[in-house]
Amino acid sequence: MEEVAIIGIGCTPVGEPWHKSLRNMAVESTWAAMDDAGIDQVDGLVVGNMSSGNFNDQESLGSLIADYAGLGNISAFKVEGACGSGGAAFKAGLMAVASGYHETVCVTGVEKMTDVVGDNATKILANASDREYEAIHGISFVGLNAMIMRRYIHDYNVKREDLCSFPVNSHKNAVHNKYAMFRKEIKLDTVMNSPSVADPMTLMECAPICDGAASLILTTKEKAKEFTDTPVVVKGCSVKVDTIGVHDRKTVTSMNATVTAAKDAYKQSGCTPKDIETIELHDAFSIMGAIGLEDLGFAERGKGARMAAEGEIAIGGRLPCCTFGGLKARGHPVGATGVYQLAELGWNLRGDGPVDAEVGMAQNIGGTGSTVSVTIMGRD
Amino acid sequence: MEEVAIIGIGCTPVGEPWHKSLRNMAVESTWAAMDDAGIDQVDGLVVGNMSSGNFNDQESLGSLIADYAGLGNISAFKVEGACGSGGAAFKAGLMAVASGYHETVCVTGVEKMTDVVGDNATKILANASDREYEAIHGISFVGLNAMIMRRYIHDYNVKREDLCSFPVNSHKNAVHNKYAMFRKEIKLDTVMNSPSVADPMTLMECAPICDGAASLILTTKEKAKEFTDTPVVVKGCSVKVDTIGVHDRKTVTSMNATVTAAKDAYKQSGCTPKDIETIELHDAFSIMGAIGLEDLGFAERGKGARMAAEGEIAIGGRLPCCTFGGLKARGHPVGATGVYQLAELGWNLRGDGPVDAEVGMAQNIGGTGSTVSVTIMGRD
Repeated sequence: MEEVAIIGIGCTPVGEPWHKSLRNMAVESTWAAMDDAGIDQVDGLVVGNMSSGNFNDQESLGSLIADYAGLGNISAFKVEGACGSGGAAFKAGLMAVASGYHETVCVTGVEKMTDVVGDNATKILANASDREYEAIHGISFVGLNAMIMRRYIHDYNVKREDLCSFPVNSHKNAVHNKYAMFRKEIKLDTVMNSPSVADPMTLMECAPICDGAASLILTTKEKAKEFTDTPVVVKGCSVKVDTIGVHDRKTVTSMNATVTAAKDAYKQSGCTPKDIETIELHDAFSIMGAIGLEDLGFAERGKGARMAAEGEIAIGGRLPCCTFGGLKARGHPVGATGVYQLAELGWNLRGDGPVDAEVGMAQNIGGTGSTVSVTIMGRD
Repeated sequence: MEEVAIIGIGCTPVGEPWHKSLRNMAVESTWAAMDDAGIDQVDGLVVGNMSSGNFNDQESLGSLIADYAGLGNISAFKVEGACGSGGAAFKAGLMAVASGYHETVCVTGVEKMTDVVGDNATKILANASDREYEAIHGISFVGLNAMIMRRYIHDYNVKREDLCSFPVNSHKNAVHNKYAMFRKEIKLDTVMNSPSVADPMTLMECAPICDGAASLILTTKEKAKEFTDTPVVVKGCSVKVDTIGVHDRKTVTSMNATVTAAKDAYKQSGCTPKDIETIELHDAFSIMGAIGLEDLGFAERGKGARMAAEGEIAIGGRLPCCTFGGLKARGHPVGATGVYQLAELGWNLRGDGPVDAEVGMAQNIGGTGSTVSVTIMGRD
């Protein structure tokens, strides 16, 4: 299997840019990544996107973005895995290069969510749950995660303030990130006392609905040397699925897709949790942060939130998490999120981020853990 | 690059099965292909689908179908390339095996279009065109193809009856296919005199809106020997894109994405048009059949329709086309179509179809030629 490396990284600021359409944003990040790599052509494009059909009345994003980015008759298609679309698209891009079918591939994650009004975004996002057994009853993703949180608190006797430490950490880390949506620190009290969205979860424990695009340029590790002295090498990458409905699982306080994807990625890379120096965690909701740390092998069961509360996930701590603000503060343009995470991990690994690390990990979740990708990357 | 072969084929009857949901159909074809291969597990699933978000309020098809097919924590995601989703998903599955990341991959194409009412299906399909420059003006895919047909007839002085020979051929070939939607021969007069949909195109020149699912099991050519004496080997496979809007092209009577994908597939396989003994052509509209034959190198410019009229595309002719009924008569469940085509080509190559061929081709088109895959397969 040919080893693959990242030679270019680009993204757009996350937010609600009314002056930019989906295609504008995707082209902006694609070109930024190509500029960063110092190339003016790729031979493959994989687009990560969840719901452009519903959000933007637009499918065929592979051809649309290749067209508007001026890439001509290349190979292009879209990959979807709900909020895990970005991570799954990265895996498809990785396989495109590793297979030898393509030499240089751009992976662009994009989602333009704010063109729909009212609570339509929440309804569209519910399409990532099981329509016939979950969404049909009116449950939203916040609702599903709130029920998981309630069970988690009950099972492990977890303090609310420990869970609320995740958003505090993410907001603190977003301040330095010019692409983040919320570049503002928040206090634990603010999170604890913000309005309830779905009890026990508060508004400030939930990632925002927003727009964004992020891109990565992949090529073989061998060829990467021609372009950069600081390639970011993919050491392990796995996408795994679980039951789409939460009710079909043996437990709701652990995500089997994370556990199995991590096992696979650790095996591919030869790494163990001890080797991971930083992680971009899928903190769409505070509870996901806690469960993620446990499923990935960084904390004992029920201790993930404590790890956050004790500052171990801070920059400078044992395992810096969400170093560019995470989903909570950088923002969560769903199909783009997995690519933002890998972009940020890439920056950290090549010395352009707030953390100086040799090896790091990114975890991207689709649905309520129905699709999870775990990627381990390093300097070599 | 590891060579890849098909060891299992399965599909559902195409139609309007009100008693089957999207997941039912996808599981049915997935299991049929696994049964055909004699396996009870795969380690990867790639789903080809265009618009389940709009048609079925359901995303995350990778996890949904893996879950309901009982495949557990495998790798799974969806690939989208409009009506070319099936062909693009096949390419992604091919790269998954060729890269060494996965050993046995199921590619399942599925679309459940008939759960929406009235002209909503046409509106959803228009999301494959350029929303901001084409669909916004009210143009549909039939309209776009009718304009291309008008220009083609003008440029090459083509007879209407020659174009109408494509549906006649497809319907004739559907009679033997138990999975086809329209197992009924039609006469040239019927096509010519059926109601106008978008002048000059008549109803009987257009593929139907329908539901269906088709699946293929892929593994390495080496491993395929353990499962079957008649593996179908992938000799070349290319997905290429073109401008999404038809107005942005130098010509509308040729599709650059077909030309470039064919060039690539011929190069990979070492084949020329003369080596191709049968083809599953993307005959969503009669005009697409004519242009396809020309772009793929089987007919001179302006002569594709004549080739059909002269019976060269009939079973027993020089180049049997749409041997199981094509999109027109087997049916065109959009995201599944590309997989149906490869299933049918596979049957022909392993001796289970109406054509006995050593080498054949399938062409799958997304949008108005904005995404095209061309695949060449053979007995060895």
